[in-house]
Amino acid sequence: MDEIDIEIVANPDLEAPVLIEGLPGVGHVGKLVVEHLLEEKESELVRRVYSEHLPPQVGVGDDGTASLVCIELYALTLDEQDVLVLTGDYQAQDSVGHYRLTNAFLDIADEFGVERIFALGGVPTGELIEEYAVLGAAATTDFVDELEDAGVEFREDEPAGGIVGTSGLLLGLGGRRGLEATCLMGETSGYLVDPKSAQAVLEVLQTMLDFEVDFSSLEDRAEEMEEVVNKIEEMESQQAPIASDDDLRYIG
Amino acid sequence: MDEIDIEIVANPDLEAPVLIEGLPGVGHVGKLVVEHLLEEKESELVRRVYSEHLPPQVGVGDDGTASLVCIELYALTLDEQDVLVLTGDYQAQDSVGHYRLTNAFLDIADEFGVERIFALGGVPTGELIEEYAVLGAAATTDFVDELEDAGVEFREDEPAGGIVGTSGLLLGLGGRRGLEATCLMGETSGYLVDPKSAQAVLEVLQTMLDFEVDFSSLEDRAEEMEEVVNKIEEMESQQAPIASDDDLRYIG
Amino acid sequence: MDEIDIEIVANPDLEAPVLIEGLPGVGHVGKLVVEHLLEEKESELVRRVYSEHLPPQVGVGDDGTASLVCIELYALTLDEQDVLVLTGDYQAQDSVGHYRLTNAFLDIADEFGVERIFALGGVPTGELIEEYAVLGAAATTDFVDELEDAGVEFREDEPAGGIVGTSGLLLGLGGRRGLEATCLMGETSGYLVDPKSAQAVLEVLQTMLDFEVDFSSLEDRAEEMEEVVNKIEEMESQQAPIASDDDLRYIG
Amino acid sequence: MDEIDIEIVANPDLEAPVLIEGLPGVGHVGKLVVEHLLEEKESELVRRVYSEHLPPQVGVGDDGTASLVCIELYALTLDEQDVLVLTGDYQAQDSVGHYRLTNAFLDIADEFGVERIFALGGVPTGELIEEYAVLGAAATTDFVDELEDAGVEFREDEPAGGIVGTSGLLLGLGGRRGLEATCLMGETSGYLVDPKSAQAVLEVLQTMLDFEVDFSSLEDRAEEMEEVVNKIEEMESQQAPIASDDDLRYIG
Repeated sequence: MDEIDIEIVANPDLEAPVLIEGLPGVGHVGKLVVEHLLEEKESELVRRVYSEHLPPQVGVGDDGTASLVCIELYALTLDEQDVLVLTGDYQAQDSVGHYRLTNAFLDIADEFGVERIFALGGVPTGELIEEYAVLGAAATTDFVDELEDAGVEFREDEPAGGIVGTSGLLLGLGGRRGLEATCLMGETSGYLVDPKSAQAVLEVLQTMLDFEVDFSSLEDRAEEMEEVVNKIEEMESQQAPIASDDDLRYIG
Repeated sequence: MDEIDIEIVANPDLEAPVLIEGLPGVGHVGKLVVEHLLEEKESELVRRVYSEHLPPQVGVGDDGTASLVCIELYALTLDEQDVLVLTGDYQAQDSVGHYRLTNAFLDIADEFGVERIFALGGVPTGELIEEYAVLGAAATTDFVDELEDAGVEFREDEPAGGIVGTSGLLLGLGGRRGLEATCLMGETSGYLVDPKSAQAVLEVLQTMLDFEVDFSSLEDRAEEMEEVVNKIEEMESQQAPIASDDDLRYIG
Repeated sequence: MDEIDIEIVANPDLEAPVLIEGLPGVGHVGKLVVEHLLEEKESELVRRVYSEHLPPQVGVGDDGTASLVCIELYALTLDEQDVLVLTGDYQAQDSVGHYRLTNAFLDIADEFGVERIFALGGVPTGELIEEYAVLGAAATTDFVDELEDAGVEFREDEPAGGIVGTSGLLLGLGGRRGLEATCLMGETSGYLVDPKSAQAVLEVLQTMLDFEVDFSSLEDRAEEMEEVVNKIEEMESQQAPIASDDDLRYIG
Repeated sequence: MDEIDIEIVANPDLEAPVLIEGLPGVGHVGKLVVEHLLEEKESELVRRVYSEHLPPQVGVGDDGTASLVCIELYALTLDEQDVLVLTGDYQAQDSVGHYRLTNAFLDIADEFGVERIFALGGVPTGELIEEYAVLGAAATTDFVDELEDAGVEFREDEPAGGIVGTSGLLLGLGGRRGLEATCLMGETSGYLVDPKSAQAVLEVLQTMLDFEVDFSSLEDRAEEMEEVVNKIEEMESQQAPIASDDDLRYIG
């Protein structure tokens, strides 16, 4: 095995495809979006990317079979728009690995003729959210304008610490290659898997790529999460009176 | 010294050997199994694998001589079945090292004609165990079926986090090379060295490879562990009344 | 992208330039100095240095565009003295990266004919400072003498732990290349961004390189910091009486 | 600069030299021994070893000049015995660096015709020591016997965790190269720099290499340490009565 080992599974012809990336991250927003697209639309696995920069680990499937941790790329069509979807259960484990894997992803994107990249993620607010804004950053001012028209918010000094990991590098390294790249970040509390934030990001994608997708399964998942949150709040409010002032004095 | 330095000690002819791996891990289960096989059967050291991905360390023997940390492979025969046993005191120290060392092990296995791999380990349950189940994961559904017939349990979503380290990669990288590979994981509390869990895994191996081995030394060791556990419990129950409620309030 | 990727932006002729380095560090002293020079003087970007040893990250500008983390080198003239200024938002993430990036910086300095290096930083004192001394270390005793005449203090066994990171290596690796290199370290409490310490370092540079620069914006920033400090002190003195002796007993 | 960069300072002819290594470690025992030899005997610097596996750091001398962190090798003669002394302020920062630097040290030792290696260190006992034993481990049983005759103790299962770092690898990698190598470890509490432990190790070296060295400066240093220990104990005994039983209940 090489440092990065790309398994070619299929080589479909794609017409002016865009790359949509959704790996695990804050609120699982990016991964929820691409999982939803893969559930709702027919897709074809085109590449598996193995690397010694991914964790030394296998995942075990429901049938008891194990498979080496990898990043997968799928081809699918959103109404008229051909798409390459990049997903997986893990990101690179080290800084060098992030750079090298992202360059490998960009090479694959190049093979398929990708000119636009949508890297998806969440941005933590630290508090419960009423209105789910989608924040953005992009490689060019033209792309910033276009995304702003689709409802994406661009705020000075946000996100404060920049954008790290695969999403950040797809934007940074993609931009250096002359690609129109953006990172779309759904606002999320940051404490929980957040299907509502994923929905907000999906709505931006619908506008940008001119397609429609059924949201019902995502809405179901949002409701389930809400019930979980309610139960936690209930439990907390029931426990509170039990803890007397005396006990609490020793917590800090 | 190269990144990985393989010392060829012997090159016996083996007939359709299987590889059994037992390195230190949860409950020391895997290592206990292969140590037991090496104690009960005659074996021949065939390879030492040194690597800068192993800790920069020597072990000191009973006679005062020191030897560089390495992984060792032994050849032995279980009744009719030729076996290559892989063991050692340490695993790789980093993710890249795990990949590279496991590939080196698979290359050695390939030299000897290995077609089946049994990677052994423990899976922590967090509580004391009455019935020692052996959980499994395998590279192919055929192998899953065969192992299930031998009493191995395959449970959905277990182990939850997948399988990490050398065992996981022998399964994942071995599977990619077209080998029939499995990881057998004895349930163990996870708190102590667990000879009973090792015995449960050995019983599966006996069925799969059609051999018999005397368990008495392992049973002795299990009894010793039980005495240790009993003494700890005794000490705890004696100490308990001493600690008043007042004292306990400050522990958490 | 290579391990280190140098983008040539411009290649101006510089006359006997010196290299001034100011990366983030203690009290942000070094970075404040070079930021001030870049604000007050006209400058030309000459190199961008990208590297997989820098964090896998993009920064987002005020217009919503993102750019890959890099180190930048600017050319500017301080009255008569040509200068190469090295700055950025991050240092290398690992020890090997520090060595390799610093060697790349020294190669660039060599291309431009740099013979003197001023690496700038802060040295933490752990207490509020009345008189801002500038401590030094240099590659040769001749350079030590010259800097001492310019008011730099050289104290036995200070800084105690040596000098780490890019500043230390510019001095150590630069010295091995036969360059006159120094690290100038403004004393600073170490708790806050410290424009006064930066001013003390700038004054040494003015003497050494025979130029003048307006300090007013730096003085404004120092005043702002002072107001921040005063507010914090005020808040602390108001909160103090609320915490009774009883409460404080449990803090430690 | 290469990964490891060896500066040749001098190339004296040495007659059947031994290598004595003393880098920082437990109780500073190894470094104290070689520092003492370098103080008491005339020596000649023969090599400086720089490496990106050492910390990215310069040390600052009393005259204000800075020098890049490195490992140094000196040649000296102990009565009749030619010796190569290896010392420095730091060890490698990572596992791979430990292997590669130690191999570089062994290559240098080979150039000078070294056939015996004495790697020096301390072994922590966790309690104050009355009689300073010197524990050993060696590459061959012959060498073990010879060292035992010189008063070195070889105890089963000690040191429990093996020997890590440069000392361990000089023994392990040196042994694989067919060199007679030993690690001599002075028992030390492990809490403080321990000149008495260093003296015990020196006495073994005197016997093994048949030389004499004046111990007075080491004895002075031991007395200074004793005064420090006494002062600490005094301060503790004075504070003790202040802490009531009630207070102590909250420490654990």
